Amino acid sequence: MSVLIVGSIAIDNIKTQLEEHRELLGGSASYASVSASFFAPVNLVGIVGSDFPKEHIDLLKSRAVDLEGLQIADGKTFRWSGEYEWDMNQRKTLSVELNVFETFSPKLPEAYKKTPIVLLGNISPSLQKHVLEQVDNPRFVVADTMDLWITTTRNELLDLLKGIDLLVLNDGEARQLTEETSLVKAARSILRLGPKYVAIKKGEHGCLLLSKDRFFSCGAFPLEDIHDPTGAGDTFAGGFAGYLASLEKDSFEFDDLKKAVVYGTLLASFCVEAFSLERLKQITKKELDDRYQLFKLMSHFEVIE
Amino acid sequence: MSVLIVGSIAIDNIKTQLEEHRELLGGSASYASVSASFFAPVNLVGIVGSDFPKEHIDLLKSRAVDLEGLQIADGKTFRWSGEYEWDMNQRKTLSVELNVFETFSPKLPEAYKKTPIVLLGNISPSLQKHVLEQVDNPRFVVADTMDLWITTTRNELLDLLKGIDLLVLNDGEARQLTEETSLVKAARSILRLGPKYVAIKKGEHGCLLLSKDRFFSCGAFPLEDIHDPTGAGDTFAGGFAGYLASLEKDSFEFDDLKKAVVYGTLLASFCVEAFSLERLKQITKKELDDRYQLFKLMSHFEVIE
Repeated sequence: MSVLIVGSIAIDNIKTQLEEHRELLGGSASYASVSASFFAPVNLVGIVGSDFPKEHIDLLKSRAVDLEGLQIADGKTFRWSGEYEWDMNQRKTLSVELNVFETFSPKLPEAYKKTPIVLLGNISPSLQKHVLEQVDNPRFVVADTMDLWITTTRNELLDLLKGIDLLVLNDGEARQLTEETSLVKAARSILRLGPKYVAIKKGEHGCLLLSKDRFFSCGAFPLEDIHDPTGAGDTFAGGFAGYLASLEKDSFEFDDLKKAVVYGTLLASFCVEAFSLERLKQITKKELDDRYQLFKLMSHFEVIE
Repeated sequence: MSVLIVGSIAIDNIKTQLEEHRELLGGSASYASVSASFFAPVNLVGIVGSDFPKEHIDLLKSRAVDLEGLQIADGKTFRWSGEYEWDMNQRKTLSVELNVFETFSPKLPEAYKKTPIVLLGNISPSLQKHVLEQVDNPRFVVADTMDLWITTTRNELLDLLKGIDLLVLNDGEARQLTEETSLVKAARSILRLGPKYVAIKKGEHGCLLLSKDRFFSCGAFPLEDIHDPTGAGDTFAGGFAGYLASLEKDSFEFDDLKKAVVYGTLLASFCVEAFSLERLKQITKKELDDRYQLFKLMSHFEVIE
């Protein structure tokens, strides 16, 4: 089963307190597509400029990411520069150039309109909705969002929430959206806005998944060194959607979603071990499955085997 | 198998942004003893003044806490006043009166000297060591500590670490003690200082348990409302030590410690649902075991049953 992924495709310049790398492949759709491709074919919807390096196109092609929905427009690709503080939890945006992204109005190829799993990566809620409206009766819709959209396009976001299955956001954003301090209360408040499920990412502390009557707490995979947190959330969402697609089911149980959260978490743990998609594109499915087994040992407190 | 617990016994005044309660039973040994008493008999070592209310003595007696090691001295009981911010993560100490605690020099009753499990609750490292030296060949020693001792009596703390099995501290304190940002690196650095195990408490994000070659990540039990976080760490340590004692073993496996961490976590989750020991003293072993089963469902991502 395929996953449709829409989001940004960017050229990033990233600075940490130890390293600086320029002209990197970035953007929510890039991370999410490569992550989902561990499990399922991906239909990518996005836009780049005529300056977009061929090596990045080749990378996506090598991962069985379908590029019929990728527009290559005259002009420059979306660019983002950011810098991380010592603890890698705080980042500041140094510059953003929307470039060709400014006039992006995605039109889905016919072949994409029946994709069963949809991931609306982190772009404006109105663009997310515009894409969703073109999909014919999807089985499961995941949407990612961020503080910017909660602040600037709150009504559009609230409108979008009525039509999705899972909202993914971080703890600060969940508190911002709901004005609740307790994450459990914040999650319940989000569920009342429409989604059947909500996943709250807590960075180095893992992730919570909630439905009206179920709860799953997933720790983060322990890492000694984090080189670049960029794209961790997008990688999480991509791995989640890809794993669901791989199940080839008509509908999903909470236990399916728990495993999807774990795979998303583990793919994100690989992502942050290097800059850009460098680590993600190197690892094998076997390395991912080995980390899954190890993580199970680390998280379960009664092992029946 | 019994647990020896040494720590403070206090009268607390506690203010949150919603409530204020005065003249409460508090102190690390009070919380830890009631928590451990769910699993094992407790030998309590501590000091109170002649003003200490009889109802608190009666509570401890009702929990099968042995009070032969409790000194009742002329003078006033140790007193602490604190206030929590809105998010319950930040607290400030409003006042401390050491009173009879100032000259506390614990002398173990003969009957306590062979207690197999020892919990050195959060008091100065030199007092902790003074108690430990009086115990004859304990099987497992847990020590709790805090930022104050890391700052003011670092050498005494480092000395103590050489003789214990498990150090319990929170994430900020682990970073402070080791000057490492990564909690995994901080934990490894602590293990090099002596303890075989380290438990790093992360408040609302749960707890990590590490040995040289094993790792366990335990989420927090999700609560909609936290009324008073005071004593959560002491309750965690008491539940941990009590559970180990209940196993009646000569030595402990990592899997034993994982379950001890879970029981400690769950007892702490009850603790914060009300002020002082109000909730802890109400719950039954069955309520605790029910929460254990629920928590297993919430934490395991593959359930074999």
